[in-house]
Amino acid sequence: MHRPPTPLILLDRKRGTSLQTQLAQSLKALMQSGVLQPGRAVPSSRELARDLQVSRNTVSQAYDRLVGEGYLEAAPRRGLFVSEVLAEQSVRRTALAPAPPTSPASVLLHQAARMESPVPFRPCQPDVRLFPLPLWNRLRAQALRSHGSNLLQYQSHLTLGLPELRRSLAIYLRESRGVQCDWQQLAITIGSQQALYLLARLLLKPGSRVTMEDPGYLGARFAWESAGARLDPVSIDSEGLRLPRDKRFSADLVYTTPSRQFPTGACLSLARRLALVEFAARTRAWIVEDDYDSEYRYTRPPLPSLQGLDRSGRVIYVASMSKVLFPSLRIGYVVLPPSLVERFAALRAVLDDHGPLVDQAALAAFIESGALYTHIRRSRAEYGDRLEAFTQAASKQGIPFSFPYTDGGMNLAGFVGGPAQEDEYAKRLHQEGLDVPPLTRYSLRPTAPGLVFGFTAFEPRSIRESILRIAVALRRRKKAN
Amino acid sequence: MHRPPTPLILLDRKRGTSLQTQLAQSLKALMQSGVLQPGRAVPSSRELARDLQVSRNTVSQAYDRLVGEGYLEAAPRRGLFVSEVLAEQSVRRTALAPAPPTSPASVLLHQAARMESPVPFRPCQPDVRLFPLPLWNRLRAQALRSHGSNLLQYQSHLTLGLPELRRSLAIYLRESRGVQCDWQQLAITIGSQQALYLLARLLLKPGSRVTMEDPGYLGARFAWESAGARLDPVSIDSEGLRLPRDKRFSADLVYTTPSRQFPTGACLSLARRLALVEFAARTRAWIVEDDYDSEYRYTRPPLPSLQGLDRSGRVIYVASMSKVLFPSLRIGYVVLPPSLVERFAALRAVLDDHGPLVDQAALAAFIESGALYTHIRRSRAEYGDRLEAFTQAASKQGIPFSFPYTDGGMNLAGFVGGPAQEDEYAKRLHQEGLDVPPLTRYSLRPTAPGLVFGFTAFEPRSIRESILRIAVALRRRKKAN
Repeated sequence: MHRPPTPLILLDRKRGTSLQTQLAQSLKALMQSGVLQPGRAVPSSRELARDLQVSRNTVSQAYDRLVGEGYLEAAPRRGLFVSEVLAEQSVRRTALAPAPPTSPASVLLHQAARMESPVPFRPCQPDVRLFPLPLWNRLRAQALRSHGSNLLQYQSHLTLGLPELRRSLAIYLRESRGVQCDWQQLAITIGSQQALYLLARLLLKPGSRVTMEDPGYLGARFAWESAGARLDPVSIDSEGLRLPRDKRFSADLVYTTPSRQFPTGACLSLARRLALVEFAARTRAWIVEDDYDSEYRYTRPPLPSLQGLDRSGRVIYVASMSKVLFPSLRIGYVVLPPSLVERFAALRAVLDDHGPLVDQAALAAFIESGALYTHIRRSRAEYGDRLEAFTQAASKQGIPFSFPYTDGGMNLAGFVGGPAQEDEYAKRLHQEGLDVPPLTRYSLRPTAPGLVFGFTAFEPRSIRESILRIAVALRRRKKAN
Repeated sequence: MHRPPTPLILLDRKRGTSLQTQLAQSLKALMQSGVLQPGRAVPSSRELARDLQVSRNTVSQAYDRLVGEGYLEAAPRRGLFVSEVLAEQSVRRTALAPAPPTSPASVLLHQAARMESPVPFRPCQPDVRLFPLPLWNRLRAQALRSHGSNLLQYQSHLTLGLPELRRSLAIYLRESRGVQCDWQQLAITIGSQQALYLLARLLLKPGSRVTMEDPGYLGARFAWESAGARLDPVSIDSEGLRLPRDKRFSADLVYTTPSRQFPTGACLSLARRLALVEFAARTRAWIVEDDYDSEYRYTRPPLPSLQGLDRSGRVIYVASMSKVLFPSLRIGYVVLPPSLVERFAALRAVLDDHGPLVDQAALAAFIESGALYTHIRRSRAEYGDRLEAFTQAASKQGIPFSFPYTDGGMNLAGFVGGPAQEDEYAKRLHQEGLDVPPLTRYSLRPTAPGLVFGFTAFEPRSIRESILRIAVALRRRKKAN
């Protein structure tokens, strides 16, 4: 009888949701993500209750619910099994996953339309269970009361967002990231993706040249491509993005993630930063600085933003609240040079008028109250522990990856000897039900091979257990060869 | 001493907001909209308390707050005055308003970045005070509990929206609007504006021909123009959009508001509907049906949707929850022909990944619980009373407009004798602090002159008082000539 990886099931007695519901949801997630395969037996309620230290009744009720919803099936005298109707979904997922996506939606559309929770080690996932949701809801209710019905109306003149939120964020960025800005340069967007899309539409035309970090962030690549731009991939080394030395080199736009290059983790050195800003000033290229997870540095503070070094108004700063708060909030932001503000607002108005305002008011109150700073401190400490748990377990189990950039962020690039290993390991871990994408997924040309491990969404116990699973799976594979 | 128009101040003892806050907000709105002009005295707290039947203390506290915020200034022994610092804003507003906007944001950016509440008779404004916010908040909290942390995560595969919401909406549209669709054809968007923008990007290229109702909806016009399309305006008569009889007439896309043409209010006749659907099938033109306020018919149900008549898969149905629930929620939706679903999702993923999910879950629960139907019934009854109050007062006061389409919707087009009157009346009512846009604002070519009156956001007492003000203002103008 197959034992489900119970360390993957995390029950939190302090959450508002009952343990029974939490357990049912965790089991569903394990089935949906393929960790619990169709046809496999689940442990008896007595066994699982003991492993999880909950009452047997809790487990029985969760099982009953999953039987009712068709996730589990009972076989007389043999217990409960993961329903075979889930098989089609898993097969399709296995067949599709190794191919790099050609568009962000084409693959995903064919997947089951259910909500998913991340399995180890999906990159870029915050642990949303750390988010102080009750406090957020209280501040949201207060904002609704204090603004009254105006907050519910059309406010088409607030295309760039609620002024109080723009003000709070501008202060936060000046203090924490050295961004030089007036609040009127700051625009709230639907995630940072919308900022990238709008910038693509405003700054590029078919045939424009975009210098793109390689490997690099797919969301940005899709945005530039949607405007018909041609991509010039440039390699990453330990100092980050390396601009070509060729004097004739030019670009309409350079996209970079200087704080911690996505997905490798290299930090753009000060010398390179100065060179990049100088290049932009000299050639009138735009620089888009995506500062996607700079809140998470564990040993020393991150370098201040590239935007803060720029004196020529060519650096556009993009970031997001998705990772700091919770992703489905969909609040990103961009700091624009004054010359772009009006055109950005005009295009945004055509795109969707303005974003939802109640959440913006709640976020303004959240920052104003100091809760944002508290939450960042708390989650940073927690993620720091997880990073340590990851590197210690990786070292203890001797998994065959090297991790050169372990100073921060939410992900670790684990490099391997060659492309064959990358391909093999990625497939093997995928079969194991883990979500560890190969670096080639983010690459335009062949680059250093490896896999990307996100560690922030998973508790230390789950991290250790998943790394053990990786070690066992890769050893098993070796023997089989 | 000038008496402020106290009937414009509506205090609701049942609202969560204190009377003092409500009063301060109402006074601010009157100052911002120019009803209370800079330099004018406000009534003594004793007078206003008596007029509004509230305690004198309530008025004093609201006044103190407005002094503190700089809206009011005290003059020794003469009382309180509207601050002169508001003058610049009002002047700018007066100077800008008569010109038709060249882009939706260019005008608005220059206005003060404060939240606004609509003044009579701004078109297309629901009365958000009718919305059952406590119930909504309860359902939202339940949704957060029942979905658990998955609702907070990235769900990039749910680009088209939460499946349960898409299912609920599909049932609602089949039942109430005769829309033929499977839930997988339905996509949730950031307001209906985002649906229009995405359709423009998917279906049009520079030089494409779009047939546009004239006068027509500006948001749609800006979307088609943003894709480089050329607009062919067609006139509206009492049967709605009139396609040219010329056999050679063609279009890549026809944009129409058949239930109630915006802004005239004409309903597209059945004969014209059949002709339009036949035209689309024959020429392979796309029809975009914008069903923006069909929930509000007061005497008989609206005709079923155009989409329901179409057998060739050429009609795309767009609508919104903005007017039925509250506008700043920013939830719209579109029913796509199956052939477009995948491309729509791929483009949406590049645009902003996906929309905020917590509100989508709350809306799904709101529909599921029956609350949507209850709220529509309740607000329809209320708006029906307001329509009656409007037409009766207009007739009683003999204001110089004819209102041919009074069977539904949220707005009434009031036609006048000629362009000179339209211009004069619009300016005069604007000076009076009212928000009644001229029809030319929505026109590409000269069309039947008139003004557009939205009646749904204002209580009958406010409607009657504002119509009286209109009558007085226009009589005064006549004498002055």
